[in-house]
Amino acid sequence: MYDLTALREEFPVLEEVIYLDNAATTQTPVRSVEAICDFFYDYAGNYGRGTHRLARETTARCEESREDLADFLGAYPEQIIWTGNTTGAINLISQGFSWKKGDEVLCTALEHHSNLLPWMALKRQGVKVSIIPQKGGYVDPDSVSDMITSKTRVVAVTQMSNVTGTIQPVDEIADITHDADAVIVVDGAQSLGHIPVDISKMDYLAIAGHKGLLGPQGVGALYAEEPQTLSESQYGGGTVTSVSFSDVVLRPPPARFEPGTPNIPGIIGMGPAIRLVDALGAEEIADHEEALGDTLFDALEEIGQIEIFSPRGSPVVSFGAPGIHPDLLATRLDEMAAVCVRSGMHCAEPYSRTFCDLGTVRASVACYTTSEEVLILADTLRELFDSWDPDSEPEYVPEPDRWEKSRCP
Amino acid sequence: MYDLTALREEFPVLEEVIYLDNAATTQTPVRSVEAICDFFYDYAGNYGRGTHRLARETTARCEESREDLADFLGAYPEQIIWTGNTTGAINLISQGFSWKKGDEVLCTALEHHSNLLPWMALKRQGVKVSIIPQKGGYVDPDSVSDMITSKTRVVAVTQMSNVTGTIQPVDEIADITHDADAVIVVDGAQSLGHIPVDISKMDYLAIAGHKGLLGPQGVGALYAEEPQTLSESQYGGGTVTSVSFSDVVLRPPPARFEPGTPNIPGIIGMGPAIRLVDALGAEEIADHEEALGDTLFDALEEIGQIEIFSPRGSPVVSFGAPGIHPDLLATRLDEMAAVCVRSGMHCAEPYSRTFCDLGTVRASVACYTTSEEVLILADTLRELFDSWDPDSEPEYVPEPDRWEKSRCP
Repeated sequence: MYDLTALREEFPVLEEVIYLDNAATTQTPVRSVEAICDFFYDYAGNYGRGTHRLARETTARCEESREDLADFLGAYPEQIIWTGNTTGAINLISQGFSWKKGDEVLCTALEHHSNLLPWMALKRQGVKVSIIPQKGGYVDPDSVSDMITSKTRVVAVTQMSNVTGTIQPVDEIADITHDADAVIVVDGAQSLGHIPVDISKMDYLAIAGHKGLLGPQGVGALYAEEPQTLSESQYGGGTVTSVSFSDVVLRPPPARFEPGTPNIPGIIGMGPAIRLVDALGAEEIADHEEALGDTLFDALEEIGQIEIFSPRGSPVVSFGAPGIHPDLLATRLDEMAAVCVRSGMHCAEPYSRTFCDLGTVRASVACYTTSEEVLILADTLRELFDSWDPDSEPEYVPEPDRWEKSRCP
Repeated sequence: MYDLTALREEFPVLEEVIYLDNAATTQTPVRSVEAICDFFYDYAGNYGRGTHRLARETTARCEESREDLADFLGAYPEQIIWTGNTTGAINLISQGFSWKKGDEVLCTALEHHSNLLPWMALKRQGVKVSIIPQKGGYVDPDSVSDMITSKTRVVAVTQMSNVTGTIQPVDEIADITHDADAVIVVDGAQSLGHIPVDISKMDYLAIAGHKGLLGPQGVGALYAEEPQTLSESQYGGGTVTSVSFSDVVLRPPPARFEPGTPNIPGIIGMGPAIRLVDALGAEEIADHEEALGDTLFDALEEIGQIEIFSPRGSPVVSFGAPGIHPDLLATRLDEMAAVCVRSGMHCAEPYSRTFCDLGTVRASVACYTTSEEVLILADTLRELFDSWDPDSEPEYVPEPDRWEKSRCP
């Protein structure tokens, strides 16, 4: 096990709050923030766009981060396409195929909206999108076998649910997918950096920079085993070798898929973060987070009054307290003990609704979380329930969408 | 005129190099970098996705930046859509229309690839894309009148050329466009923060965070007068009010156009940068940059041996030295005096090729540039020419594309 005390010094905010919203975003280590500052103060130039020292240094550092990610995955750098987020990576795939009417896509009932809506949008092109059922947070490979057809081109599956942390049998699903001559798209937003991830059977892996990899928000990536088989769906500077008004020659992948100035500081910040995660070790992190999940599960179970939706040992623990709105519960935890948890649908509404029509409260740990922290969550919940008087609580009304009243013409 | 010495303290790298590649990216002020550090160290959460203190603070700061940009433009915040870069903003428009065969788009012969390729890609859908000619770096509104038809739906034009800094008559072009019931898309990547920009006649303005606005790389924005008339073309978390496997209810703009976790640190860094530019004043910046352009033009003219492609007073000065490859010239300027300029096609190949088949050397100033700096460029060029011996120079061979040799299967 790594040195947790030393690790936590990389994340100063952990002294201020009990941060258990790591499935939304992890914290970023000081070493990454310092790399970002070095960029801004010492050598900021644009990426791949100049011969001068700043542009060269900037480009070299960005490519170092790409190599770090490739090494971490066991891939080639040219198989790594930088995107703005996981969502961007999945849209890049869903829009990078030539679809024809009658093509089929299989999605699971567990997916985050970002691995669901890009596929559902293909219905307009006559693509049939079918939902593989889940049971207890897991997809049964037999269901995939039952549903896959000769028309199936893509099977899209999350590796780890962002609602319950359940890990899917992606290797088995990949075998079934490949037997049907389809490709598998794995949403790795919640898995990478939390558990060991083996890409050897994956055609595509959508990657979040700001979750298990501890990087800054605004960086995602797509691992594509054969990036040259995708078509580009966004167009702009940096993607082409030559342009005339009648003709365009594309650059090889990954460049053709990265139009415009990328999130340079974010990409540069990814490098030290990935190397830190790699040094801790995915196995070690998974063991640590599973132990935390056990501790939290047991503590919540002991309280009673709580319905736990995640299995024991999951690093993402969804739960509910009957009669208390999840948002209100999350708000009170923050007010009482600076415990930061997420509440609601977690951008995975179909799955979250299977637990409660108001969604769940979700506590999610990271490599730097301590068992003391998850026990503070449990203690605060106990304290809250002890003093809970539904009659003294004003009825909870969620805030309206901030954009509800538009002043646009 | 603002206090240039005080301003330059915000940009420490200016003590190390003569930075004249501002049309590729400007430098970012210390106040923005500090705001980014504060985010990472004090309150990093995800945007719009939680009730706890970190998520609330993060969301509030991101929305403050949106308000800063809206105020700067004289727009409503809901008319501002954050994107990854200018390119993303233009793709959002080009893919946000329902095109039908026979629709027409007019583009100018001056455009950056990012305001050209997204339109050219529409040819596959049967859209006719015609190129408005330029003369001396300017588009004549009469040419637009001559070419516009009842089938024209979009006129796409840069406000300031990124090759020669020439400013286009966008107001007149907007009038002609609107008379034909079409919409105008203005590429503001080079204009915003460099000259006063009046959006009152613009339907869309594509915005770069990292150029005249001095923000971090990886942030762009789209100003849309009526964002609700666009369709969304990227799908994912944060864009929807509710989701089932059969139905999706979109959030109002701008949220429906911002899928996934945005570049939170970048957006937070934009706020102080925009407020700094606003405090300096667009008129003041334009006057200062025009004076620098004059100084550089005169100095280059005095050297002789140089062909200047930009008009006098332009803040973006493209030039060439017959017989010397632009990349080699740029490299030597860096080696000799740490002068950072850009060379090549500037992602605007059709226009750049009108000057030279190898592109141009481009020096571009910013609000913080001094007349001493542009004179150092001129002095270094003179020194270079004085010692230039073509026979002693090895033949210049540009580097091959780094992705030329792919190891993908």
